[in-house]
Amino acid sequence: MIETSNSPSEKSGLPPGSLVHVGDVHELETKMSLMNYSTEEIIEEPVSSIEDIVKYTDRNTVTWVIIEGLANTDIVKHIGEEFNVHQLVLEDILNTHQRPKFEDHGSYLFIVLKYLKSSTTPFSVDDEQVSILVFNNFVFVFKEKVDDLFDPVIQRIKTSMGRFRSLGSDYLTYAILDTIVDKKFVLIDLLDDEVTDLELELLGSEATEETLKTIQRLKREIIHIRRFVSPLRELISGVLRSESELIHDKTYIYLRDVADHVTRVIEQIESYRDMLSGLLDIYISSVSFKMNEVMKVLTVLTSIFIPMTFLAGIYGMNFEYMPELKWKWAYPALWSVFFIIPVVLVRFFKKKNWL
Amino acid sequence: MIETSNSPSEKSGLPPGSLVHVGDVHELETKMSLMNYSTEEIIEEPVSSIEDIVKYTDRNTVTWVIIEGLANTDIVKHIGEEFNVHQLVLEDILNTHQRPKFEDHGSYLFIVLKYLKSSTTPFSVDDEQVSILVFNNFVFVFKEKVDDLFDPVIQRIKTSMGRFRSLGSDYLTYAILDTIVDKKFVLIDLLDDEVTDLELELLGSEATEETLKTIQRLKREIIHIRRFVSPLRELISGVLRSESELIHDKTYIYLRDVADHVTRVIEQIESYRDMLSGLLDIYISSVSFKMNEVMKVLTVLTSIFIPMTFLAGIYGMNFEYMPELKWKWAYPALWSVFFIIPVVLVRFFKKKNWL
Amino acid sequence: MIETSNSPSEKSGLPPGSLVHVGDVHELETKMSLMNYSTEEIIEEPVSSIEDIVKYTDRNTVTWVIIEGLANTDIVKHIGEEFNVHQLVLEDILNTHQRPKFEDHGSYLFIVLKYLKSSTTPFSVDDEQVSILVFNNFVFVFKEKVDDLFDPVIQRIKTSMGRFRSLGSDYLTYAILDTIVDKKFVLIDLLDDEVTDLELELLGSEATEETLKTIQRLKREIIHIRRFVSPLRELISGVLRSESELIHDKTYIYLRDVADHVTRVIEQIESYRDMLSGLLDIYISSVSFKMNEVMKVLTVLTSIFIPMTFLAGIYGMNFEYMPELKWKWAYPALWSVFFIIPVVLVRFFKKKNWL
Amino acid sequence: MIETSNSPSEKSGLPPGSLVHVGDVHELETKMSLMNYSTEEIIEEPVSSIEDIVKYTDRNTVTWVIIEGLANTDIVKHIGEEFNVHQLVLEDILNTHQRPKFEDHGSYLFIVLKYLKSSTTPFSVDDEQVSILVFNNFVFVFKEKVDDLFDPVIQRIKTSMGRFRSLGSDYLTYAILDTIVDKKFVLIDLLDDEVTDLELELLGSEATEETLKTIQRLKREIIHIRRFVSPLRELISGVLRSESELIHDKTYIYLRDVADHVTRVIEQIESYRDMLSGLLDIYISSVSFKMNEVMKVLTVLTSIFIPMTFLAGIYGMNFEYMPELKWKWAYPALWSVFFIIPVVLVRFFKKKNWL
Amino acid sequence: MIETSNSPSEKSGLPPGSLVHVGDVHELETKMSLMNYSTEEIIEEPVSSIEDIVKYTDRNTVTWVIIEGLANTDIVKHIGEEFNVHQLVLEDILNTHQRPKFEDHGSYLFIVLKYLKSSTTPFSVDDEQVSILVFNNFVFVFKEKVDDLFDPVIQRIKTSMGRFRSLGSDYLTYAILDTIVDKKFVLIDLLDDEVTDLELELLGSEATEETLKTIQRLKREIIHIRRFVSPLRELISGVLRSESELIHDKTYIYLRDVADHVTRVIEQIESYRDMLSGLLDIYISSVSFKMNEVMKVLTVLTSIFIPMTFLAGIYGMNFEYMPELKWKWAYPALWSVFFIIPVVLVRFFKKKNWL
Repeated sequence: MIETSNSPSEKSGLPPGSLVHVGDVHELETKMSLMNYSTEEIIEEPVSSIEDIVKYTDRNTVTWVIIEGLANTDIVKHIGEEFNVHQLVLEDILNTHQRPKFEDHGSYLFIVLKYLKSSTTPFSVDDEQVSILVFNNFVFVFKEKVDDLFDPVIQRIKTSMGRFRSLGSDYLTYAILDTIVDKKFVLIDLLDDEVTDLELELLGSEATEETLKTIQRLKREIIHIRRFVSPLRELISGVLRSESELIHDKTYIYLRDVADHVTRVIEQIESYRDMLSGLLDIYISSVSFKMNEVMKVLTVLTSIFIPMTFLAGIYGMNFEYMPELKWKWAYPALWSVFFIIPVVLVRFFKKKNWL
Repeated sequence: MIETSNSPSEKSGLPPGSLVHVGDVHELETKMSLMNYSTEEIIEEPVSSIEDIVKYTDRNTVTWVIIEGLANTDIVKHIGEEFNVHQLVLEDILNTHQRPKFEDHGSYLFIVLKYLKSSTTPFSVDDEQVSILVFNNFVFVFKEKVDDLFDPVIQRIKTSMGRFRSLGSDYLTYAILDTIVDKKFVLIDLLDDEVTDLELELLGSEATEETLKTIQRLKREIIHIRRFVSPLRELISGVLRSESELIHDKTYIYLRDVADHVTRVIEQIESYRDMLSGLLDIYISSVSFKMNEVMKVLTVLTSIFIPMTFLAGIYGMNFEYMPELKWKWAYPALWSVFFIIPVVLVRFFKKKNWL
Repeated sequence: MIETSNSPSEKSGLPPGSLVHVGDVHELETKMSLMNYSTEEIIEEPVSSIEDIVKYTDRNTVTWVIIEGLANTDIVKHIGEEFNVHQLVLEDILNTHQRPKFEDHGSYLFIVLKYLKSSTTPFSVDDEQVSILVFNNFVFVFKEKVDDLFDPVIQRIKTSMGRFRSLGSDYLTYAILDTIVDKKFVLIDLLDDEVTDLELELLGSEATEETLKTIQRLKREIIHIRRFVSPLRELISGVLRSESELIHDKTYIYLRDVADHVTRVIEQIESYRDMLSGLLDIYISSVSFKMNEVMKVLTVLTSIFIPMTFLAGIYGMNFEYMPELKWKWAYPALWSVFFIIPVVLVRFFKKKNWL
Repeated sequence: MIETSNSPSEKSGLPPGSLVHVGDVHELETKMSLMNYSTEEIIEEPVSSIEDIVKYTDRNTVTWVIIEGLANTDIVKHIGEEFNVHQLVLEDILNTHQRPKFEDHGSYLFIVLKYLKSSTTPFSVDDEQVSILVFNNFVFVFKEKVDDLFDPVIQRIKTSMGRFRSLGSDYLTYAILDTIVDKKFVLIDLLDDEVTDLELELLGSEATEETLKTIQRLKREIIHIRRFVSPLRELISGVLRSESELIHDKTYIYLRDVADHVTRVIEQIESYRDMLSGLLDIYISSVSFKMNEVMKVLTVLTSIFIPMTFLAGIYGMNFEYMPELKWKWAYPALWSVFFIIPVVLVRFFKKKNWL
Repeated sequence: MIETSNSPSEKSGLPPGSLVHVGDVHELETKMSLMNYSTEEIIEEPVSSIEDIVKYTDRNTVTWVIIEGLANTDIVKHIGEEFNVHQLVLEDILNTHQRPKFEDHGSYLFIVLKYLKSSTTPFSVDDEQVSILVFNNFVFVFKEKVDDLFDPVIQRIKTSMGRFRSLGSDYLTYAILDTIVDKKFVLIDLLDDEVTDLELELLGSEATEETLKTIQRLKREIIHIRRFVSPLRELISGVLRSESELIHDKTYIYLRDVADHVTRVIEQIESYRDMLSGLLDIYISSVSFKMNEVMKVLTVLTSIFIPMTFLAGIYGMNFEYMPELKWKWAYPALWSVFFIIPVVLVRFFKKKNWL
């Protein structure tokens, strides 16, 4: 049943609930691991089949299952069967073109969001879909790629800083969300560097056509980022409003903290967007201004030399009867005209503020 | 009573409820077919008169009537009479200039929306109006044209993947809506290709006046698409909020899935709109920038040659008393001036960043 | 008491409720007519005084009074006294600078809106204020001008298509509203033609300064239209939300139909507005692009001839010692330079994409 | 305690409730007058101290106190003490940088708004703050300047048109609000003239740099007007929503009328804002277009004469061996070339639509 | 435990609630002081450890603790422990990248906002985070820097103007908020000066590239200011809506006054933003217009001299057979042509409005 396709449109026509992996990333192997913890002990082990997971269901502990890579649709299917997850949710987990969203299914919560990873030179953003299933004492995380995103959370569970292990699956969910949202600040720092560089370039008058391409590139990346970040506000406020029994009163304050961070990220991105629009305006204005300068130089030069060249042309004519040609002081007199014309014109242009 | 007109304005003045087909497409013949299914059996047959439909009314099964082509207003009228449908609804079915909308009429639901079909080279969008009447065990679909839009749904009913046949008319409605909405992803893929091509063209400095026309064309298509896609959000949330008895609890999750898809489509279209606006700005900036470059070349050339031509003009004058003309080294000296002037000016322009 | 003024500001300072006609149109005579109908009979008669109207008050029929031209403020005053209409409402009827609005005064409803009439070559829009007073069995319509706007409604009442005469004053009100709103589709068709023509003109590169004026003219007309059309949405939803006893349950579905039409009109106008903004951008871009083309031609020509003219100038100098002048092959050699320079430059400009 | 300062920032740091006059206008003397009216009689008298006011408190009549000029902070303080007005309200009355607002303080209502007075040549707007305190049988009006704003209201009370004197302090408040709001229509008429003039100037191709300054000036005035007009909507709807006992049921319809006027004013101002933005676009487009025309002339001229001057230059060279110079028909032949070149080029440019 | 980092992103990965100072300002020493007041007495003393604070907890007075500089995280930690403050709140106090916000934690209120300090030449804005913890009889204020921001409040408490000392911690909180918000008016005054200067510069035609940079700088500062000012509206309305027992009924009117000020500040900033956008448009238009003027001069000059130079070139040719050269009146005749050409062209250009 392992079948993959790149584009959401390719799946149109299939019945809802068909478990097909739709996405760009296809790890050769799906990496699965599990962490079971309580205040007393921590068990960490790799997972190869659904049985490795099921055995923890009756314990009064928190079990965190991380599935990295979605090529293995079987495991998703088995989890769905064992934990009674709706077909459409399973489908959403495997289709990595989801919009970030939150759904309360009574016995479990379903959260999809995007982890945005940025790279520099040039600045660009990769997105990875992270799906979270929250049960009373189980948290499933499905990721597209194998990476170290959750290492700090794992580390914190192990060292149990912040009374982590005494808290339930809702606190683990918070920690996961917080990690993903906070990663966006890294992205904003990079974006800030890029926009600041651009601004210096523009105001330092070194704008080239490359600058224009950079503005366009950043604008597109911001459109890209916004599509994944804007729905987060709705997502978190959905979680906060849901009166799910899976989220304990104590955890709300932490989730509100995440909500604050999300608002901050969104506002920052909006202000970078405004700034970029402003920079494009500045670019256009600045190009216009420089063209004006160039035009002035051309006009001043032409204005000075064209009449003088005309004068020289006149006395280059071969008419037999041109009395001036015989005058002794005609040539020096003309030279003095050649000195006066530029002086007068330069003054005129200075008065007109062209020089 | 078969009467047709192209423009909504031509109908102004007619009493409400007059059954006239208003639209651009007039198939010669109306194609009608019917599908009756339950978990036990499937009946598929063509429909020629209202009697072929009425005979299924008392059965406890789902009957799906597809009417392709709206030239036959009689059948619409008869369905209206048999199934007690309001005159205005019948009028809306026949007038293909409807805005997508949802109406709950108690014993039946009325949904109108647009199926957007895109063609490439150049990218353009055709819309076809699809009206849906949902009764307890009947679903009527009215389409403007004969095409294969619903083939996947028919296929799915036949092979009964996804327990389709055990579910009621509301699930069929969902499947129809889902099919139409998902077709929009195809459109977005095409749009994506077009916008990406445009962007490459623009940034690759190959922008011509043709590029401008393409931007304008795509902008208009997007305005066109938005008019049909934006009301879908309202439509689906109307369906979700309506507490109609015709929609069972189980179906809500599927409808919410359609709502998610609609939101995704709308957001994508909005971001393409933003991108196109950005591309036009880039186009203008880029044309400005290039003009600046051209101007610089002109100015540099003129600045270099105009003073030198003037100098040459001077010594082309025919004054009798021009001592320089007799000097032996005057001519080579002038040549050295002709070498110095460009060198000095080129340096000056380099410093001004014009070269 | 017949007094008129053109501008709303001229009335500032007068006490509220003074019955003065404020508006641009002042027919010499006010045309008044009346139509009384029930399922049994229709009476149509001209009205000259309030007595002609009052005599129908006790009948269980619908009486429709149409007053065309507002110069006769007496009749408005008398209707106000007989039917107990608030002074401010009477004032609003006479002041034709009203914003479209709906007011529920308990025993009667008051609706003001604008009938937009368009003329072509060039496209422009005239507005006429229509005020409607709806009583239980009376409908008063006040119009600024004498025209045939309501002829189709009158015709429909006479032929009683659509069971019109069995329905009350609320259905008549619906028919009036529907007629006025549907007239706006005519306007949109004309607007569509104008915008399409403009677009063809612009993309066909025939843009002149006239095009700019047309864009500006259409933009202003659309601002004009929007001011009268946008409040209609609010007006109709006000009617739908009001739980007035004057509107029967059966009529709501018809009013909702009008609401749909209004939404469609508004959305269309908004999309024409977007398109016009787009067209102005295209105009600017296109002018920029053409200027660029012109500049290139100028620069190419200048670049080719200026150095050659300089060369010719050199050998036009009259220095005694210019050895080249005596060389036999100098002249043909120079000609070959004159061939080489353009060839080289043309290649260079072709590489730069300027030709 | 008479102390004044110009800028809101200068007051920062003072305790709340310190009665200091903050504003730009400081009449030398504060003019105070009082009008006490009932259906029976009218008393009009100047006020010099708080005692002149207090003596009317027990009467069952309406007393209207008008205080013009805010330099006398003592009277404000005494009114505050006698009528039990909150310190912050008194402070707001004296600080003329208030945003229009409405506050319901139980025993009295507090309204602040701006009276906008416009002057022409050039169009500009002055604002004067008007504060209104409404008690059961008292209305206090505080104005910055002495002018004739309320003369029509005073006149109406005297002649008792519209049953004015039988109505309470709430109707007087309505009359005051109505007067101030209706003054804004005068302003809109002036604005309309200015915008229409601008448009004619622009479309008549007489645009100069002065036009640009006028656009900018009007834009700023509109930003200015909006800041004082936009909050009025909120203010009036605040009054309408407040269920204050000070406002009788009968008065609501009058207040709703003011609300309608406010909405109309706001919509008009918004549309002038849109038009001005449009005019700036037209200005830019038009300048661009004209530059294009100028460029074409320059290019056509240069294209024609530069090659011909080059040709003339060639035959002005002094080479000994130039066989053409000796040919008899060379000179007339060249003249024919000089005729052919312009003819060919003019045709070429005509084809290119440059002429 | 003193640890600092500059960027919010550097903290991502740390567990929530770790007390680390994140910010740009790191005073060497944290300055702590305390003020305890009641109607009877005032105690002012420096604070060196938590014990100095704790001893006031049981008194029925208001104690205001000001902590300037956040390098000493220990004191924050101890206050947190003694007064039972949530870890996340403490973390927010130390992280100076907070968005202004209000949180009601039952026994205490938490407010974070920014004090914006502006400097001139050039105009720029510094922000300092101020966190406020409000308990029943305690107010803690945490600031990033040591400055005199609260001196007026302290002064007012000492001289007890406005019955300050009889009111509780909520009134002190109001006074603090009011001080911070009112400081923003200073900023707006400065901004107003800058924008007015810019406008004069632009309209006085002295625009240089420096003007462009100033516009861009101000735009960025306004984006900066908005990010800190916009959330204040939400913050204050949060305080007003919260039905916290810590805020007494009497204080609401004062808080509403602060809310009014905030609205005014926000509206002013928005209007400066609009004005700046307008100024950029004017800049672009003005540059365009000037370029047009320059182009006209160039074109007029070129048009006049190019044909005349060509004529002079013709008669500079060395053909043997050029009859005109021998005519006696040829040279003066040519001079008259040289007079006629400019006269005719100048008239032509005057008619075209180019001169």
